[in-house]
Amino acid sequence: MTLSASTACTNRGEFGLISRIAAKVITTEGVITGIGDDAAVTELSAGMQLLTSTDMLLEDVHFRRAWHDPYRLGRKSLAVSISDIAAMGAIPRWALLSLAIPPGLPPDFIDDFIRGFLAVASEYRVTLIGGDTCSSRSGLTLSVTIMGEQFPDRIVRRTGAKPDDDIWVTGTLGDAALGLRMVEKGEGDEFIVGRLLDPTPRVSAALILAGAGLASAMIDISDGLLADFGHIAELSQVGGCIRCSDLPLSVSFRSHPAHITRIPYELALSGGEDYELCFTADSSNREKIIEAMKKCGIAVTRVGIVASSPGVTARNPDGSRFQVHTEGFTHLI
Amino acid sequence: MTLSASTACTNRGEFGLISRIAAKVITTEGVITGIGDDAAVTELSAGMQLLTSTDMLLEDVHFRRAWHDPYRLGRKSLAVSISDIAAMGAIPRWALLSLAIPPGLPPDFIDDFIRGFLAVASEYRVTLIGGDTCSSRSGLTLSVTIMGEQFPDRIVRRTGAKPDDDIWVTGTLGDAALGLRMVEKGEGDEFIVGRLLDPTPRVSAALILAGAGLASAMIDISDGLLADFGHIAELSQVGGCIRCSDLPLSVSFRSHPAHITRIPYELALSGGEDYELCFTADSSNREKIIEAMKKCGIAVTRVGIVASSPGVTARNPDGSRFQVHTEGFTHLI
Repeated sequence: MTLSASTACTNRGEFGLISRIAAKVITTEGVITGIGDDAAVTELSAGMQLLTSTDMLLEDVHFRRAWHDPYRLGRKSLAVSISDIAAMGAIPRWALLSLAIPPGLPPDFIDDFIRGFLAVASEYRVTLIGGDTCSSRSGLTLSVTIMGEQFPDRIVRRTGAKPDDDIWVTGTLGDAALGLRMVEKGEGDEFIVGRLLDPTPRVSAALILAGAGLASAMIDISDGLLADFGHIAELSQVGGCIRCSDLPLSVSFRSHPAHITRIPYELALSGGEDYELCFTADSSNREKIIEAMKKCGIAVTRVGIVASSPGVTARNPDGSRFQVHTEGFTHLI
Repeated sequence: MTLSASTACTNRGEFGLISRIAAKVITTEGVITGIGDDAAVTELSAGMQLLTSTDMLLEDVHFRRAWHDPYRLGRKSLAVSISDIAAMGAIPRWALLSLAIPPGLPPDFIDDFIRGFLAVASEYRVTLIGGDTCSSRSGLTLSVTIMGEQFPDRIVRRTGAKPDDDIWVTGTLGDAALGLRMVEKGEGDEFIVGRLLDPTPRVSAALILAGAGLASAMIDISDGLLADFGHIAELSQVGGCIRCSDLPLSVSFRSHPAHITRIPYELALSGGEDYELCFTADSSNREKIIEAMKKCGIAVTRVGIVASSPGVTARNPDGSRFQVHTEGFTHLI
């Protein structure tokens, strides 16, 4: 679907870039035909269902070139998509990447971006099987589609939370939101900024939970714990209460009080982009969960409890309700 | 992956639009979990492989709002993706749609766009299973991922053309390119402009060819016959010759000589966006192909022959080589 041939550039055109990318791709299992035909051909493992998710990332809406170096932008573009597959308890397999490239983008930018994207692909055994490239008249625009697979009875949805289930989170919360405040000010705590610019999808933790049937519902925390647990609550037709005093905060996070406008709970409850898992589980699974997460080296914390009545609240240590200033990130449309 | 909460708009936010779209979706077979979780869950038919393709469409690069009414833009956004699945001889099944929406877009625009998108989905029994919405700081940006399925031995690739195979095309060529010239001038032959703004993916023709094993290689004509047959030739390690006098031109096309800058062959050979099929087939299949296409009411024309030596040429009726001014659309990167 092309307006006109006026943008033609045969020397460094669409086919040239695709070939350059295709030459760097390492193919893993299930790929029958990768980049180069009208569609990629893949094969699911026997008995597994397909999981698919897509994200669009726009310059100056989702990222800024001034903050995101191309290598880490490439890494993050795929990592946040893989996180969606992890949130279903599924195995990430294949990705599609579309790039709309603005005029004047430094020549090495796309190469570095692709290097980062393919590094994460390699780390999680994901194969880039196709995509699209075109020119952009404004900023860099990316679209990533990720596919994964899992046995039907291991897939963990947002719909399965039950009253009295524990609410758990992996890792620490609020780091990425604090990282955003830091890069906005040109400051640089490596850990905190890394949490924003180079997040780690919790694939192994998710697969262990899914494989052992330990989680009743799961989501990845991209919009903040309150908002994302809110999705579980809504779809499971339950409510829940988060204990602020139990929110896991990193050492680095605790060392930066000056940047935290109100109290740490705000960023931990409502800061986006941590890409940790939030899941619910029957209280009888507590020890098994702790043991399983210990094995894969992922911290895990119980932060609240599912309630039968609708509504998600956060409580201060004295039992009073914690009033949240903003409830997660919602893009303007 | 969000820069900041400054774009928040809770009343008409991301979740509201997604719910509005989800309420209109008609689910067809194979969909286990559609819109609403971290990833969609689908199930392939027994014995079939998965086919996946993605396209990104940018305002003022791929389309102009002045020319493309939202309903037909929605139709075309999905139709061109379905065409990629048809080009593999596969059955279109599921789609993902991402929308980056600029400020000031008229309120009905997205509703009309979605209406068009879902109309085509319904026509081809495709289910919209997920996507992404966000705000755009410049133009409307769309990304469509399409998935299909087919038995392995029915999938038709670009790689199977053999020397002396016939080169066939469905329908007529050059209409969409002529349509582009017409809308640029504000003129309006309904058929020709419709070919540009509301193309028809050749799904039934492709499935019949694939099911009967009649085509050795296939592609959809999005960049012009010469360029797209060129992809078959390159990947099949063959060449070919197109007979200009055999190129199928519509009655409407022939009635508009004033708009054709050189001679009709130019647009028919190099005009993009017809979304007809180009396929190759053993010469022993000629009658079967004509008979099969007659049954599904699709015109089909032999336009050339595959050669063993590399290089794709077009020949005038007198045997001289037709010099093409431009060889298909290549996006600037």
